[in-house]
Amino acid sequence: MSQALLTDLYELTMAAAYHAAGRNEEATFELFVRSLPPERNFLVACGLDGALEYLETLRFDDADLAYLRTVELFDEAFLTRLATLRFTGTVWAIPEGRVAFAGEPLLVVRAPIVEAQLVETFLLNALTFPTLVASKAARVAIACDGRSFVDFSARRDHGPDAALLAARAAFVGGAAATATVEAGARWGIPLSGTMAHSYVMAMGDEEAAFRSFARLFGDTSVLLIDTWDTLEGARRAARVARELQGEGIRVRAVRLDSGDLAVLAPAVRRILDEAGCGSVQLFASGDLDEARIAALLAAGAPIDGFGVGTRLGTGADVSSLSTVYKLVEDARGPTMKLSTGKVTLPGRKQVFRELDRGLLRRDVLALAGEELPGEPLLVEVMAQGRRLAPAESVTVARDRCRDELARLPPPLRELSPATPHPVDLSRGLRDLTARLRSMPR
Amino acid sequence: MSQALLTDLYELTMAAAYHAAGRNEEATFELFVRSLPPERNFLVACGLDGALEYLETLRFDDADLAYLRTVELFDEAFLTRLATLRFTGTVWAIPEGRVAFAGEPLLVVRAPIVEAQLVETFLLNALTFPTLVASKAARVAIACDGRSFVDFSARRDHGPDAALLAARAAFVGGAAATATVEAGARWGIPLSGTMAHSYVMAMGDEEAAFRSFARLFGDTSVLLIDTWDTLEGARRAARVARELQGEGIRVRAVRLDSGDLAVLAPAVRRILDEAGCGSVQLFASGDLDEARIAALLAAGAPIDGFGVGTRLGTGADVSSLSTVYKLVEDARGPTMKLSTGKVTLPGRKQVFRELDRGLLRRDVLALAGEELPGEPLLVEVMAQGRRLAPAESVTVARDRCRDELARLPPPLRELSPATPHPVDLSRGLRDLTARLRSMPR
Repeated sequence: MSQALLTDLYELTMAAAYHAAGRNEEATFELFVRSLPPERNFLVACGLDGALEYLETLRFDDADLAYLRTVELFDEAFLTRLATLRFTGTVWAIPEGRVAFAGEPLLVVRAPIVEAQLVETFLLNALTFPTLVASKAARVAIACDGRSFVDFSARRDHGPDAALLAARAAFVGGAAATATVEAGARWGIPLSGTMAHSYVMAMGDEEAAFRSFARLFGDTSVLLIDTWDTLEGARRAARVARELQGEGIRVRAVRLDSGDLAVLAPAVRRILDEAGCGSVQLFASGDLDEARIAALLAAGAPIDGFGVGTRLGTGADVSSLSTVYKLVEDARGPTMKLSTGKVTLPGRKQVFRELDRGLLRRDVLALAGEELPGEPLLVEVMAQGRRLAPAESVTVARDRCRDELARLPPPLRELSPATPHPVDLSRGLRDLTARLRSMPR
Repeated sequence: MSQALLTDLYELTMAAAYHAAGRNEEATFELFVRSLPPERNFLVACGLDGALEYLETLRFDDADLAYLRTVELFDEAFLTRLATLRFTGTVWAIPEGRVAFAGEPLLVVRAPIVEAQLVETFLLNALTFPTLVASKAARVAIACDGRSFVDFSARRDHGPDAALLAARAAFVGGAAATATVEAGARWGIPLSGTMAHSYVMAMGDEEAAFRSFARLFGDTSVLLIDTWDTLEGARRAARVARELQGEGIRVRAVRLDSGDLAVLAPAVRRILDEAGCGSVQLFASGDLDEARIAALLAAGAPIDGFGVGTRLGTGADVSSLSTVYKLVEDARGPTMKLSTGKVTLPGRKQVFRELDRGLLRRDVLALAGEELPGEPLLVEVMAQGRRLAPAESVTVARDRCRDELARLPPPLRELSPATPHPVDLSRGLRDLTARLRSMPR
């Protein structure tokens, strides 16, 4: 299926209006998060790969054009233009896995205005959800404090595609694995899984269910012990684990999915240990998120790994980000919008990041031409509509995120709201903004 | 792309375990929402069409099998079985657009257990998000009180696919149109769009931007008036609308997208009316949802239509539903799970809905064989893996939803939490549950 119609109608009507007016000069748009939700102290940039793939392959096929003809808004001259339209612009972006903040362009697009306008909706869509999930996953990773967690979100994510995007973004943000098989097939993300209550129920006998499953899957098996009675389930799992040790099979873990995990986990740990199953790990799931994981670990729950599902893959406390895509420069130079509460900063930008003893000190939002101290975050990733480098492996983005999280100052690593990280404006940007504000319209 | 791997790993390992144990007797699973979030008084069933399409087309292709071989969990006998696996079961469902409540099966699957288990993840995914959005859209429709609203959510929905699913579910729930062009192409949903601030900015002159756009799009044009100063924008729009009346063009509406809409809307209305543009409508957008729309209308804001985006397409206050897929019957008869807080009711079910003077009185959750007063909600939609009727047009589901909302008792139509609608258990279901609870495990 062509992705060209995955756009708001107004992108097409505006493009048609530009076309009709003979306007197609270069314009620069920036995509950024307007403000951080109070529940987030930082973002993890994610989704760039999908955005670039879209830009490289954008084309309106015959079926698209046939449909657009039925809408009765577009003349043949414009539809003919669309038939050969390709994205030919330049793109700068903050690489996937890097930490970013409100106002910082995650993506900058410079292209003839018809192209630059048409791609707005898809680009916003391509970056918003992955950045949302990677940012949440990074918080979960911090809460796990060295333990691993697995993306379990597919069943309640917002459609099949969202399940894939969530698995990828969760991995970038720090998940060890996903349960979503297609995400493994597509990106090489490690897979992890356990068993469902229905399996135990269908086998009828809990111990028999554990035994046959562990015999089949050996060292990878995780036994779900709460279908009927958790502690009785733990005793049965311990018996099976002991018994199979004799066959050279080491049950990997038991899984708790209900009840008060802070109470059950120590009790199950004790049952396992007393049965000589000290190497069998405890894996917990059930409406978990970073806050609940942190609370469990603070209470000393002896849990070795977590399955994190719905609240990771749908955002839960934060189900969207205030991403926008704003015109910052056109043929007449830098431009800005003054709508109440929605003022934008003019001109194409760069972000400079200053460190202090290895930790983030401040970011400076500057005009692209300025030379300032610190590391520039925006990298040119596409020219003339082609990527400048092959797509990165998702593990590269994941490693980058791990390194970035290590550079967060302690307050930003807190799960509770911190004083916002300083994002200052450069002298050049401040002067330009003041000058444009004072211009008559 | 095959959708067969859009599943949790554990569905495949459980299926492999059943296969290895020679178990493939029929089993019945029910998909339902465990409990309604306090912010929702009812659900609107949605997503069935996608679920049935998946079941009809489910197959593991060579690439899927090649990948599964690399996972090193599955033997060749099982992979050979997967190569020819098709869904051959029977499905009952509550039709799209009907109102439903917690505990009521939205979908019932009876199939050989390997098939029935494998489809769990995808079916949950296929119904959860559409039901979430249709339920939210129905609340927005109620708040709009006869005015129209349009789905504007694509840019921040959870991936491109979510944007399509959201457009469809919003339409089922009562949206008049969507801005997402592909949703129009795919399902014939009416399209609606306006213009962006960037267009006004790029044209440089607000009045010129309005004039050229309205000349091109005539009676469909909606002019965005808040790029710089809303009231000045309204005066410019009024001048253009008056001027174009002479050319036989009627500007459809102006759009407000920022500021205090309750204050701006009457002021803009006055400007338009005084300029002789009484037929130009007011369209409002900007982080709207059912609560904000209700508040604006309660304050008397003269707004004729609404664009509803992020908060509709991502759920906002409710970003997921507690959907589950539970084994209720297998070869040995009805079965139930007793996990703390997650007890399930045994046996295949039917829901009977009783009305009182045209309004919902109560629902009764019963065993499938029982004959009770009221209308049965679950309809057989698939047998031997084939749909029993062609896919419905989305307008059929939308009309059904409109009729359903008219049958809601007033408290359930309130945006604030109401006393839950009674969903009682039939005698037969209560007796069976008591009997199974008392059985030893």
